[in-house]
Amino acid sequence: MINPFTDEYFMKKAVQEAEMAFEKGEIPVGALIVIDNKVIARSHNLTELLHDVTAHAEMQSITAAANYLGGKYLIGCTLYVTLEPCQMCAGALYWSQISKIVYGASDEHRGFVKMGTQLHPKTTVVSGIMANEASELMKRFFVERRK
Amino acid sequence: MINPFTDEYFMKKAVQEAEMAFEKGEIPVGALIVIDNKVIARSHNLTELLHDVTAHAEMQSITAAANYLGGKYLIGCTLYVTLEPCQMCAGALYWSQISKIVYGASDEHRGFVKMGTQLHPKTTVVSGIMANEASELMKRFFVERRK
Repeated sequence: MINPFTDEYFMKKAVQEAEMAFEKGEIPVGALIVIDNKVIARSHNLTELLHDVTAHAEMQSITAAANYLGGKYLIGCTLYVTLEPCQMCAGALYWSQISKIVYGASDEHRGFVKMGTQLHPKTTVVSGIMANEASELMKRFFVERRK
Repeated sequence: MINPFTDEYFMKKAVQEAEMAFEKGEIPVGALIVIDNKVIARSHNLTELLHDVTAHAEMQSITAAANYLGGKYLIGCTLYVTLEPCQMCAGALYWSQISKIVYGASDEHRGFVKMGTQLHPKTTVVSGIMANEASELMKRFFVERRK
C-alpha cells in the first residue's frame, strides 16, 4: 500500500504557506504542525504585518497546535517548516517537547544549529526536505526586495 | 536631584507582576518594558492559563511594546524581568534589538547564559537586581505546588 503522508507531502503545504508570506511582502517562511497525519496548525511569517519579531511561522503554529490539543505539550506532533528554526523558535520547540522537526533549507547564519540552541532530548530532526524550493523562494524574495 | 527611576524602581513593578502570576498558579515571572522612563508593557507568565509554552512574560511584553511603538524593533527600550530569560525569550530579544535587559534571579539550568543563546551585539545586560525577592517567590511557588 502506498502511504501518501510522506515528509514531502506535508512540506509541500508548508511551502504553500511560505508563498502566502511572499505575496504579503513577508520573508517567505511557512510552517505546519501535524499529529497522526492530520494538520492541526498552519501559518506563515507575519513579522512585518504585525510589527512583531515573535510572529515567526513556527511560533504561530506552536500556539495554534497547543490550542487545538488543549495542552501546551506537543508530544506526538511533527513541525514542518520551510527554513531552519532560529534560536527563539528552537527555544519554544524545546519547551513544547515536540516529537519531530522537519525543515527545508538550512539557515547557516541564524539557524539553531549554528547558534547552538538546545532542543528537547526527545525531539528528532530531519533536514533538507524540499530545501531547494524553500531556498529558491527566499532568494527570489530578497532579489525582489532589493529592486 | 534624586532620580527615582532606578533599575530597582522598575524591577519592583516586575516583581508585582510575578506575584500576580503566583496568585494564578503560574510560575511567578513578571516583566516590564520601559522607554524614556515610561512603562509601555507589563506582563506575567501565562503558560498554564493559555496552554501555550510561548506565553512567557518576556514574549508578551515584547509583543505589547512593539504594538505600542508601532514597529518591531525595541531600540531605546529596557526589559525588566524577574528571572533570567530562557533560550526562546533571549532569541526573541535578539531579533528585537532591545537596548538593555535587566533581570533579577539567575536561572542556572535553563537561562540563556548557561544555554549559550546569543543576544544582539548592541544589547547590554544587568543582572541580580532584586534577585532575592525574585528567587524567594520562585522557591515559595514550588514549595506550594508540591503540597
